[in-house]
Amino acid sequence: MSVDVNRISLNQITTESWSLKEAIDGCVRHDIPTISVWRHKIAEFGLKESKHMIEASGLGVSSVCRGGMFPAPTISERRERIDDNKRAIEEAAELGSDVLVLVCGPAPKKDLQEGRRWVQEGIESLIPFAEQHNVKLGIEPLHPMYAADRSVITTLGEANALQQSLESPQVGVIVDVFHVWWDPFLYEAIERAKGHILGFHVSDWRVPLPDIFKGRSMMGDGVIDIPRIRQAVEINGYYGPIEVEVINQAIWDRPGDETLQLMKERFAQHV
Amino acid sequence: MSVDVNRISLNQITTESWSLKEAIDGCVRHDIPTISVWRHKIAEFGLKESKHMIEASGLGVSSVCRGGMFPAPTISERRERIDDNKRAIEEAAELGSDVLVLVCGPAPKKDLQEGRRWVQEGIESLIPFAEQHNVKLGIEPLHPMYAADRSVITTLGEANALQQSLESPQVGVIVDVFHVWWDPFLYEAIERAKGHILGFHVSDWRVPLPDIFKGRSMMGDGVIDIPRIRQAVEINGYYGPIEVEVINQAIWDRPGDETLQLMKERFAQHV
Repeated sequence: MSVDVNRISLNQITTESWSLKEAIDGCVRHDIPTISVWRHKIAEFGLKESKHMIEASGLGVSSVCRGGMFPAPTISERRERIDDNKRAIEEAAELGSDVLVLVCGPAPKKDLQEGRRWVQEGIESLIPFAEQHNVKLGIEPLHPMYAADRSVITTLGEANALQQSLESPQVGVIVDVFHVWWDPFLYEAIERAKGHILGFHVSDWRVPLPDIFKGRSMMGDGVIDIPRIRQAVEINGYYGPIEVEVINQAIWDRPGDETLQLMKERFAQHV
Repeated sequence: MSVDVNRISLNQITTESWSLKEAIDGCVRHDIPTISVWRHKIAEFGLKESKHMIEASGLGVSSVCRGGMFPAPTISERRERIDDNKRAIEEAAELGSDVLVLVCGPAPKKDLQEGRRWVQEGIESLIPFAEQHNVKLGIEPLHPMYAADRSVITTLGEANALQQSLESPQVGVIVDVFHVWWDPFLYEAIERAKGHILGFHVSDWRVPLPDIFKGRSMMGDGVIDIPRIRQAVEINGYYGPIEVEVINQAIWDRPGDETLQLMKERFAQHV
């Protein structure tokens, strides 16, 4: 079954060279109904003005990117991270998004187990605040190649286990095809995630990979079987917005309007 | 418990700019008792001369790198791959190595399950030949960032499952810290691998990673808790050679003698 093209959402990092205003205007011009907003872009205009622009545009907000980054060597640093996550929750609530995406953070030293424990403690401590603001916390497992510098949570199975251990409907998981496509246990993990999938992100894995961080390609340019993953996510209950999240310098260097045109075409063909 | 420095083995890719003769002479000069030999280096001298040089040196051969690369779109191509693996087994036997390392190969199209099935069929078909030659087949799970171009087998858990499904003492697994360090289920998988661990490889994961393929660093320069993984491997029965396998252009560009000196120091301190 083909994708509903109206589920497309622009994850703002795909047009990193655009301001929030330019991205909003671009979505309106290209009939993209939904946007995922990054916090460094909100900061450029301030929260009040960002909220005003989004409301005036009529766009939906699929998520705010990003909270997380829980592990840190000292208690005071870990508290600062929690405070920053609370601000992120407030921003999501203010912008009308019910999901804050969590990139959980790396271990400060070599001890991954300790890092994972701090992630769990961090998310746990945020749950009441997230409830009050009606914002859900989406644990996004990142590709294992980011385990050293971005996230100790590397598989959907691990994100599920974390979600289950927290025993809160306020916490769910995000499925991003770039991070999880390789996993031999992916489809079992998507089944186990049933009912708590909070987002679905698409891009592609091109060979050779252009870069480690800025390594994502437009859907159709790589090896990921995106429709198969999308259908598994749908069967397990997620029919919300599908964010196109492409972190790629060559795409950032192109005019944003070309990128939006291209992502719409590729979305219809390859998602 | 600290490492037995006499377990050190030079995986020949660490001194990629050296010929087999230079690598053998280097090991002798630096009191490194064991070497792992790559097939493209054997090919430069021919098998007979390679065998002669190794025997004359008195070095042990911890493994031959590499067999594998089983998936291919057509039956005839897959047969060619099997034939090539048989030659690799013969080479290992001839050089006195009881282990052929398998890098299993990527899926030719987007279907990872199909690729994995061909890997299983490929290894299965090699077992009688490997038995006759007294060479064990070591399935090496590769880091998930190589899933698209080098190996559909990406975790030790998956390698274990494959090993178990084949039900042959001729097949085991290789633990390379660079490929597996990030895995939340690593220590459980090492326990499940008990009795069929055929090799242990060391290097390190530096941040930022210098490159995707040539991305490995010398032990101590990265985030991997190597002693913890080594001890887990020992507890589960592997006390054989420990190969230093560093794929890194900057290290290849240095004089080989400096590399051997450095790897010995780092081995004693960080393995």
